[in-house]
Amino acid sequence: MSIAASPTTLDADALRRWLDGEHRQIREQVRERLSGMDLAQADGITRAEYRELVLRWATELGREGQTALGFPRKYGGEANVAGSIASFETLAHGDLSLLVKCGVQFGLFGGAILQLGTERHHDEYLRAVIDVSIPGCFAMSESAHGSDVQNVHTTATYDATTQEFVVHTPHDGAHKEWIGNAADHGRVAVVFAQLITDDTAHGVHALVVPIRDETGAPAPGVRIEDCGDKMGLQGVDNGRLWFDRVRVPRAALLDRFASVSEDGTYSSPIENPDRRFFTMLGTLVQGRVSVGGAAISVSKNALTIAVRHGLRRRQFTAPSGEEILLLDYRTHQRRLLPLLARTYALHAAQEQLVVALDHAFGDDDVGDLARRELESHAAGLKALSTWHATATVQACREACGGLGYLAENRFAALKADSDVFTTFEGDNTVLLQLVGKSLLTGYKHQFGDLDPLGMVGFVASQVFHDVVEKTAVRQVVQTLADVVPRGDDDSELLDREEQLLLLRYRAEHVLASVARRLKRGIDDGHDAFEVFRACQDHVLAAATAYIQSVIGEAFAARVATCEDTDVELALDRLCDLHLLHTIESDRAWYMEHGRLSPSRSKTLTRTVNRLLNEVRADAGQLVDAFAIPDTVLRAPIGVKDPQPAHPTV
Amino acid sequence: MSIAASPTTLDADALRRWLDGEHRQIREQVRERLSGMDLAQADGITRAEYRELVLRWATELGREGQTALGFPRKYGGEANVAGSIASFETLAHGDLSLLVKCGVQFGLFGGAILQLGTERHHDEYLRAVIDVSIPGCFAMSESAHGSDVQNVHTTATYDATTQEFVVHTPHDGAHKEWIGNAADHGRVAVVFAQLITDDTAHGVHALVVPIRDETGAPAPGVRIEDCGDKMGLQGVDNGRLWFDRVRVPRAALLDRFASVSEDGTYSSPIENPDRRFFTMLGTLVQGRVSVGGAAISVSKNALTIAVRHGLRRRQFTAPSGEEILLLDYRTHQRRLLPLLARTYALHAAQEQLVVALDHAFGDDDVGDLARRELESHAAGLKALSTWHATATVQACREACGGLGYLAENRFAALKADSDVFTTFEGDNTVLLQLVGKSLLTGYKHQFGDLDPLGMVGFVASQVFHDVVEKTAVRQVVQTLADVVPRGDDDSELLDREEQLLLLRYRAEHVLASVARRLKRGIDDGHDAFEVFRACQDHVLAAATAYIQSVIGEAFAARVATCEDTDVELALDRLCDLHLLHTIESDRAWYMEHGRLSPSRSKTLTRTVNRLLNEVRADAGQLVDAFAIPDTVLRAPIGVKDPQPAHPTV
Repeated sequence: MSIAASPTTLDADALRRWLDGEHRQIREQVRERLSGMDLAQADGITRAEYRELVLRWATELGREGQTALGFPRKYGGEANVAGSIASFETLAHGDLSLLVKCGVQFGLFGGAILQLGTERHHDEYLRAVIDVSIPGCFAMSESAHGSDVQNVHTTATYDATTQEFVVHTPHDGAHKEWIGNAADHGRVAVVFAQLITDDTAHGVHALVVPIRDETGAPAPGVRIEDCGDKMGLQGVDNGRLWFDRVRVPRAALLDRFASVSEDGTYSSPIENPDRRFFTMLGTLVQGRVSVGGAAISVSKNALTIAVRHGLRRRQFTAPSGEEILLLDYRTHQRRLLPLLARTYALHAAQEQLVVALDHAFGDDDVGDLARRELESHAAGLKALSTWHATATVQACREACGGLGYLAENRFAALKADSDVFTTFEGDNTVLLQLVGKSLLTGYKHQFGDLDPLGMVGFVASQVFHDVVEKTAVRQVVQTLADVVPRGDDDSELLDREEQLLLLRYRAEHVLASVARRLKRGIDDGHDAFEVFRACQDHVLAAATAYIQSVIGEAFAARVATCEDTDVELALDRLCDLHLLHTIESDRAWYMEHGRLSPSRSKTLTRTVNRLLNEVRADAGQLVDAFAIPDTVLRAPIGVKDPQPAHPTV
Repeated sequence: MSIAASPTTLDADALRRWLDGEHRQIREQVRERLSGMDLAQADGITRAEYRELVLRWATELGREGQTALGFPRKYGGEANVAGSIASFETLAHGDLSLLVKCGVQFGLFGGAILQLGTERHHDEYLRAVIDVSIPGCFAMSESAHGSDVQNVHTTATYDATTQEFVVHTPHDGAHKEWIGNAADHGRVAVVFAQLITDDTAHGVHALVVPIRDETGAPAPGVRIEDCGDKMGLQGVDNGRLWFDRVRVPRAALLDRFASVSEDGTYSSPIENPDRRFFTMLGTLVQGRVSVGGAAISVSKNALTIAVRHGLRRRQFTAPSGEEILLLDYRTHQRRLLPLLARTYALHAAQEQLVVALDHAFGDDDVGDLARRELESHAAGLKALSTWHATATVQACREACGGLGYLAENRFAALKADSDVFTTFEGDNTVLLQLVGKSLLTGYKHQFGDLDPLGMVGFVASQVFHDVVEKTAVRQVVQTLADVVPRGDDDSELLDREEQLLLLRYRAEHVLASVARRLKRGIDDGHDAFEVFRACQDHVLAAATAYIQSVIGEAFAARVATCEDTDVELALDRLCDLHLLHTIESDRAWYMEHGRLSPSRSKTLTRTVNRLLNEVRADAGQLVDAFAIPDTVLRAPIGVKDPQPAHPTV
C-alpha cells in the first residue's frame, strides 16, 4: 500500500534530448539567449516603459536573425518553418509580452506579407519585417466581428480613375480591434477588408496600409486608439484602428490569391469566394500552431515551479517525526501529475503537428485532405493546449499556496499573460466547432466556415446525408466495436493498444452519434438552425474526443521511438498515466456506452492512483528535462538549485 | 427542439428581496455606500498610493460604524454578527483590497481581541480597532508552517522575575509570513506563539505585541519586511515579522482560554492542549464564513458581467439574417448557467451557515456537536465557494472573449484579487481534510487536528473501529439504499426529494466506503501512515460530497420558503438545474454504484440541456437581482443600462 516512492535514477539530460528532438540546437540557442537577457528589467516598470523595452528586445532578436528562421533565404531567413516554431516555443519560457510582440511582427504581419503577398511585396517588406525597421500590424478582427471574420465590415473599394483602393471603416462597430503593434509602434498594417470593384463585393482580402508617418503620427485618415490596460501582456501595444477613406495604391493588395487589374477587373485562381477566404486564412495556420506550442511551454514553466516546490516543501509531521513532502500527498499528486503527463503528451502532439506543417509548407502539392487535416489538428490542438495551460497555471499556483501568490514566484505573470491564449488566434470554442465540422464532412469540405448558416445549410444538404449514410464513420465505429473490449472484459488496462482503441472508439462513436442526431433532426422536419443549436455542444464533444485521440496516438508513437531504455520506461509510465487519466475523466461516457463496467471503472481509478505514485518518483527529472534556465524561470521557489533563504529547522 | 427562449416576466426586484433576505437593509446601505465611493480612484495608481487609499477608505468606514456591527454595543457595535457578515459580503462587490483590509482589521485582529481576550483587552483595544486608530495584525502563519499552525515555532516564554513574556523568533523559518497590515500600517499584532512557563510548553497561545512605535518605526526587537508585489490585492500591505526577544507585559496574553499567574502558574479551563488550541481556532470560524461569502459575491460580479454581455453580444448570422446572441448558443449556456445556478445554491447555503454562526455566538451553551458541525460546514463551504469563484471568474472572462481581457471590464482585478481566497483562511485542501475527519468521527472528536499524525493515530484507534462498526454511517447508507431508486428506475429526475436523496446517498456512501477502507488497511497490518496517505483523496471526496449535499439541501429548503409564485417557479427551475448538474458531474460515480443506469444517465444530460434553455429565459433577471450598482461593477460591458459606444449596424 506504500504510496511514497524513492527517486529513480532517470537521466534528466537524456529525457531533455528526447524532448528537444530534431531542433535541439535551436532550442539550446534560444534558452541561452533568453538566460542572458535580464528579463527582470520588465519588473515594476510602467506600461509605456515596458512597451519600449519589448520593442527593443524584439528588434535585437530580429537583427540577430533568430526570429527570421521561417523566412526565405533571399531575405535573410533559413526557410525553416519547423525550426522557427521550435524557436518560438522556446522563447515562450521567457517574457510573454516579448513573445506576443514577436508573434505579431514576424508571425502575423510578416506571415501575411509572405503568404498572401507576391514577390514585389516580399521585396518591399520582408527585410524590414525581419529587422523590425517597419513594425507592422495584422488588422483582421473588428469590434463587432471578432470570431466571425468572414463578415468584417471594413471595405476596400477600387477606384479605377486613380488606380487606388479606398479603405474605409463604414461604422464604429467596424473598427479594427485588439491590433498588436497598433497603439505605439506600427508603421503599416495588413488590413482585412471586403474588396469591392465596380459595386461588386468579392469577399475579404488583405491590403498593406500605412498607418503612421515617419514621425510616428497617424497617417492621414487613420485614427488610432490605445486598448489601454489589459489583464496581462502589458508590454504589447494593442490598439484600435479606424480608416476614413484612406487611399492606397493598387499594388497594396496582397495578391497571391486574387488580383485587380488597372481597369478594375477582378480575378482569382480560386473561384468560390468561401474557398478563397479560407485558403487565405489557412495560410495563417502557423499562428495557431505557434500559440499552441507557446501554451505548452507556459505549462512547463508552471509545472517546473510547482513540482520542485512540492519536492522541497514539507508540511505536517509524519509518525516518523519527519515532516511530509507535499508531493508525497496523494491529493498533491492528483493535482499535479496528470497535468505533467498531459504536458508531455501535448508536447509530442505538437511536434507531430509541426512536422506536418513543415511538410505542407515545403510542398505546394500537398493534397486538400492533408491540408484540411493539418488545419483541423492545428485548431484543435491550439484549443486543448491553451485550456490546458490555463488549468495548469491555476493548479500550480494553488499547489504552491501563499508562496504561489507572491509575484516573485511568477504565477501572477504566467496567469495574466497566458490567459488570453484561449481567445486569440481563434476563440477555442469556435476552433473546436471548426474541427467538428471537418470531422463531419470527412474533410471533404473546406475548412473554416462553421458559422451557423454554413453549418445549417450543410446539415440540410445531400452531401451530409451521404456522409452519414455511407461514409467510413459508421463502418469505423462498427469495426472498432468488434475489437474494443466490452465493459465487462477484465483485460489489462495497461495494454497500450487497448488504451488507444478506447480513445479512438470514443472519438468515432461521438462523431457518428452527433451526425445521426443532426440528420434525424432534419429528417423529422425540425428547423435546421434549431437542430444545429441543440447539437452544438455535442459537436464540440466530438471534436474534443477526436483531438484527445490524436494527442494520445502522438504521445504513444513518440514514446515508441525513444532509444534510451530507462527514459523509455519512464515515458511509458507517463503515457499510461496520461491515457488512463484521460479515460478516467470520461469514464461516465464509457459506462454509458458499455465499454467499461462499473467494477472495471473502479479498477481504472486504482490503477491511475498506482501510476501517480510511480510517476512521482520521476517527477523531479521530468521537470528538469524541460531545461528552463533558472534565470528564465525566475521563481525563487522553483529554481533548480536554490540558496535556502529560510532554512527549516 | 427549440432551444432559444423568450425572456420571462420574472420580477428581478422580488428576486432581489428573496436574495437579500433578513439583512436587506444592511445590504442596501452597503450598496449605496459603495456606489458613492468612486472606486475608480484605485485604478492606475502606485502600490504605495493604493495602500494609503485603502487605509483611508477603511478608516472612513470604521468611523461611520458600518464595519462595527459585529462588536459589542459597549464599544460602539451592535452585537449583530449575522448583520456584520451580510455587510462584509456586500462590501465584496467592490474593491477587494479594501475588503481584505477590513477583514484583517475588524475580523482577524479585532475578532482575536474580542474572542480570545477578556474585558481588559476589550476595554483597551476595541474602540481603537473600530475607528482604526490602532491598525492591527493577526500574526499566525509562519514561513515554514503555513497550514500546520499548531506547530508554529515562535515562542512566548514567561519571565516571572519581570512578569513579562519574551516573544521570540527562534529561526528564520519561524518568522510570521503574509501578515496583513504588517508592512506599513500595523501598530500592534496578535501574535500566536508556543507559550512556555518554567520550561513547560503549553501549546499555541495569542498575545498582543506592539510592532511599531508612534512614529511608525518598528518597535525594539521587531524586524519587518514587506511581502512585496503580489498577484493581486496590491492595496493590502502584507508583511513578514521577526521578533528578537521582545518583552511584553503579562497582561498581553489574550487570556479567555488560558492564563498565567504572576508567579508563572499556567491554568486553563480546557485541560487537553489540542482541544484548547482548536477551541481558540474555532472562535475564529467567522473569518472562514466571511471569506466564503465574499467569494460568492465575486462570482455574482463575474456572472453579472458575462451574462449581460451574452445577452447583448451577437456573433455569426442565423438563417433569419439576424446575428445570434451569445447566450442562445448551447455551449455558452453550458459554460455560464450551471455556474449561475450554483451561485444561487451557495448563496442559500451561506445564509443558512450565517444563521448557525449567529446562533452559536448568541449562545455559549450551544452543544459541542452543533459547534463542530458549524466549524465543519464553515470550512467546507469556504473551500467550495472559493473554488467556485475561481472557476466562475475564469469561465466568465473566457465567455467575454477579448473584451473580457481588457482591464476596464474588471475580470483582471476580480481574478487577481480573489485567487488567493482558495489559500488564505485555511488552504482549501486542508479544510476539506478537516471536514472529512469530522465526518469520520461523527463530530465526536474535536475539530481541526487533521495533521497526518492525528489522523493516523485516530485511524488506528478503537474509537475509529467503533465508528465504522457501529455508528449511524453504515445504517444510514442501508436505509438510504432502500429509498434511493436503483439505476434502472425510470422515475422522474425532476422529483426534488429524489434529487436530494441521490446527493445524500453519495455523501453517506463515499464516507462509509472510505471508513471501511481505512479500517481494512489497518486490520491488514499496513502502516497506518501509508493507509492514510493512500486514502487521502478519498477522504476529500467524502468531504466534498457531503458539503455538496448540504448545499443542495439548503438551496431546496430556501426555495421552498419563497412567497412569490413567479419567483418560486424560477428558483425551482434553477434548483433543478443545480441539483441535476451536480449529479450529472458525478454521474460516473452513480453508475459505478448502481444508482444510474447508462440510459438514465443519458436522459439526465438531456434534462440538464432542457433546463439550461428554460433558465436562459430568466438569465437577465437572475443577475439583475444581485443588485450590484453599475458604479460598483464598473465594467462597461456589464452595466445594466449601457450607452452603446460601438453600435452594431
